[in-house]
Amino acid sequence: MMDLPLTTWLLFEGAATHHSQVEIVTRLPSADVHRYTYSDFALRAKQLMNALDTLGLPSGAVVATLAWNGYRHLEAYFAIPCSGRVLHTLNIRLSADELAFVMQDAGDSTVLVDLEFLPMLLDVAERVPSLRHIIVLADNPGSTDPRVLGYEQLLTDEPTHYSALELDERAAASLCYTSGTTGRPKGVVSSHRSVFLHALAVTSAAGMAFGPGDCVLPQVPMFHASAWGMPYAAVAVGAKLVFFGGPLEASPFVELLLNEQVTVTAAVPTVWVSVADELEQRSDPGRYLRHIISGGSQPPRTLIERYLRNLRIPIVQAWGMTETSPLASVAWPQHRMLGWDEDNVTDAARRQAGLPVPGIAVRIRDEGGAPVDFDGESMGSLEVRGPWVADSYLHGHGSENFTADGWFVTGDVAIGSEDGYFVISDRTKDLIKSGGEWISSVDMEAAIMAMPGIVEAAVIAVPDPKWVERPVAFVVVQPGQNVEPSSIRAHLLANGFANWQLPDRVELIDEVPKTAVGKFDKKVLRARETS
Amino acid sequence: MMDLPLTTWLLFEGAATHHSQVEIVTRLPSADVHRYTYSDFALRAKQLMNALDTLGLPSGAVVATLAWNGYRHLEAYFAIPCSGRVLHTLNIRLSADELAFVMQDAGDSTVLVDLEFLPMLLDVAERVPSLRHIIVLADNPGSTDPRVLGYEQLLTDEPTHYSALELDERAAASLCYTSGTTGRPKGVVSSHRSVFLHALAVTSAAGMAFGPGDCVLPQVPMFHASAWGMPYAAVAVGAKLVFFGGPLEASPFVELLLNEQVTVTAAVPTVWVSVADELEQRSDPGRYLRHIISGGSQPPRTLIERYLRNLRIPIVQAWGMTETSPLASVAWPQHRMLGWDEDNVTDAARRQAGLPVPGIAVRIRDEGGAPVDFDGESMGSLEVRGPWVADSYLHGHGSENFTADGWFVTGDVAIGSEDGYFVISDRTKDLIKSGGEWISSVDMEAAIMAMPGIVEAAVIAVPDPKWVERPVAFVVVQPGQNVEPSSIRAHLLANGFANWQLPDRVELIDEVPKTAVGKFDKKVLRARETS
Repeated sequence: MMDLPLTTWLLFEGAATHHSQVEIVTRLPSADVHRYTYSDFALRAKQLMNALDTLGLPSGAVVATLAWNGYRHLEAYFAIPCSGRVLHTLNIRLSADELAFVMQDAGDSTVLVDLEFLPMLLDVAERVPSLRHIIVLADNPGSTDPRVLGYEQLLTDEPTHYSALELDERAAASLCYTSGTTGRPKGVVSSHRSVFLHALAVTSAAGMAFGPGDCVLPQVPMFHASAWGMPYAAVAVGAKLVFFGGPLEASPFVELLLNEQVTVTAAVPTVWVSVADELEQRSDPGRYLRHIISGGSQPPRTLIERYLRNLRIPIVQAWGMTETSPLASVAWPQHRMLGWDEDNVTDAARRQAGLPVPGIAVRIRDEGGAPVDFDGESMGSLEVRGPWVADSYLHGHGSENFTADGWFVTGDVAIGSEDGYFVISDRTKDLIKSGGEWISSVDMEAAIMAMPGIVEAAVIAVPDPKWVERPVAFVVVQPGQNVEPSSIRAHLLANGFANWQLPDRVELIDEVPKTAVGKFDKKVLRARETS
Repeated sequence: MMDLPLTTWLLFEGAATHHSQVEIVTRLPSADVHRYTYSDFALRAKQLMNALDTLGLPSGAVVATLAWNGYRHLEAYFAIPCSGRVLHTLNIRLSADELAFVMQDAGDSTVLVDLEFLPMLLDVAERVPSLRHIIVLADNPGSTDPRVLGYEQLLTDEPTHYSALELDERAAASLCYTSGTTGRPKGVVSSHRSVFLHALAVTSAAGMAFGPGDCVLPQVPMFHASAWGMPYAAVAVGAKLVFFGGPLEASPFVELLLNEQVTVTAAVPTVWVSVADELEQRSDPGRYLRHIISGGSQPPRTLIERYLRNLRIPIVQAWGMTETSPLASVAWPQHRMLGWDEDNVTDAARRQAGLPVPGIAVRIRDEGGAPVDFDGESMGSLEVRGPWVADSYLHGHGSENFTADGWFVTGDVAIGSEDGYFVISDRTKDLIKSGGEWISSVDMEAAIMAMPGIVEAAVIAVPDPKWVERPVAFVVVQPGQNVEPSSIRAHLLANGFANWQLPDRVELIDEVPKTAVGKFDKKVLRARETS
């Protein structure tokens, strides 16, 4: 068989010929809508490849983006790796210190930046000695700083033809930092090979299941885990692509979703919570929308049921991490569940982290390293292996997360079911070990958040001289509601928690601290307890 | 990223853990039904791996199968490559001479054979000096020949555990011969890497689109182009698998299809012609059946429309060749065709050979090698490139089919459309060049076969002193029907053919000669004309 390298170019090259008339639609942060075709996209991406050559950026140079989702960001997704450079997506929610740290760590030479993030970038630019060019993703650069160039001005005279490079499939294509709920963010480098394989897996009916007949709206940010690989996958199959730029607003988001006849969309559960009311007010919202992919954290059962019953749109849970590219598993119900009672299907499949996609292997091990049975009860450390799973972090950090026999230690605690699915029961470090028994902080948080009047709940372990660790809960109550800590304890008792498992203390707070990707930042709560 | 080889083992290893309760159902040629689970399948496949070790077959040994579709054949599909040997699927319809030729050419050391094909195999066994073992796929071997072993006897004492081998992803995994409509059959070797990538592409929603929620019935034979890769793809995603063993019979086939709640099935168009009446007699035949994949030759327009209108089941055309593993393109309608008139969608998409699946590139070139535009009119030689496309034949035969710049020359003539699809208009050697103008034999055959009372039609070029070539048609009329050659010519005139394009001669015959895979064997007709 042809010894053809698996590259981002392979994903890109058919766009101009086979999908030339397919649309790419961007709702800009200004609320204007930009529309063009795959044919326009391919020509402009090739102009950007030529522009990066003209700037003299060497092969392997790290080129970063600091931007909302949109068509220019998509052009960068392909032009940077296809021209032999490395795409580094910067999280727009990082603090100046964090931004300076990851840019230094990565050695960014160039940044493509939305106009609104230019001041933030200029603030940290001096702390990044490798930085040579700042390219503003706008019609005009909006700055007279000599380092600052305009994206459109850069493209305008470049040729629209680019000869495919002979790329090594193991060469770096992109770079993304973990969110770092513990310690400093760590860089994960993806190869051309891994990006190609992951994109193919995303299009699989065992993955996110989209093809030429689909219209895909990745509401997960392009600065976070490559928007779950959806831009690469959508371009590879010629699906229509729709982007919502700027912060989420339920009404225009739903408007875009329905107007563009989106068939597959993906985001974290909080997005689906935010837009549920809006969707329920529309007639036949599921006419085109075939399924919603939800990842990042487990969606509440009530959310899954609400979408299934009221909107007749299945929420399909996907699981993965930056280190797994990210897609590792998807919770599609099995064929044999056809005709099962909906509640049973929800328990057996929809509430699970999923079945591994082809190519990915998972194993669950106990503290001694022995395999844990898929019996629906036993829990253990979740480890993953596959051709798009990291085998190291940039600069050799975090080597303790990789086993000698070639597996990635996720840091998650998982339970395997007899049906073959697995579910994340906790982060290893969030499990609470009290008197020799385990208490799951995730289960307790879910139970508290199911109480009327509760917005958020985070449970952590605090050191205890007698029991080693004891749970403490931090709870955010809806404005105007009156919820007493004692009633929270009573609610937990009534919902299957034993007396000894109840939190020693329930503290009402205004908001649970969050990381740059919106996850509960328990290390801030822990620091508060131990300081 | 982990430098994990892409192997058939990767497709197989999740079966026991993640899909253990999923069923594999075989309707045996005896009409009995055999049922077991992925768990049983995985254990028995590992027993077969151990049995091949016990027999002392070295790594790289070629192990052949000569069998109908079924669960034992599936075990061989995985056990042979996963244990480091090469699977060679033999076509049960080959003549004794052809069988002896391909077995010699491949150097088969062992054959796994259905009991009914044992006499045929024993007839040719002496002409295959490399042959050491004959293993009968039945409960009992049914022969006292010392070379003959029983499959079940071989497995019975073997352990059900097998340690994964360190396989090179570029090592040979399987071997399949082209049908050879010209010259001798030529061997195409697939690597582990190409089988893995192809399987992933088959599961893609841009491919055949199946996942854990599906039940797959590959009605294309497992001895032909790996049943289009469906067994590998189905096991990789944990889809329920259903096999119909033995020759096609419409009524039990449809019974099996509906009883097992098959969601995706695939076969050549003649199968869908054969079972259409039977399907139309059932209530709601499309309740579970989501789509039918049709490949091998272009399905008639009337067939596509009949399934869409009467049964509400879309026939989706796929295209490929043994040299392309085989899946290269699938004719999914694009999202922008939503809301188009059904006739227009059929013209633009369903009647096309398709859009290339991710990883595959196609180009169309004129006789001088210049690219031919996708304009819906211009035709040229179709060439294909991709990581699961052959770069040579076994023993270096047919090197003229591979270009210096790394493309496979399909021998097909294709037209690209403005929508980005391509359609096969003819085989290069079947185009008729009359007085400097091209006549498509495929178009003329399709037009004749659309006439009432016609079963089959094959059109070939015969040498002509004045016009270089002229068309001659061979037509099979339905028993009891009276169709005159003159009325066929009149029908062609009424259906867009010009006077100069009409066949010089229309000959009524009893049957069009066919190759071992059921395609029109025009080389027999040509030989008849020139002898």
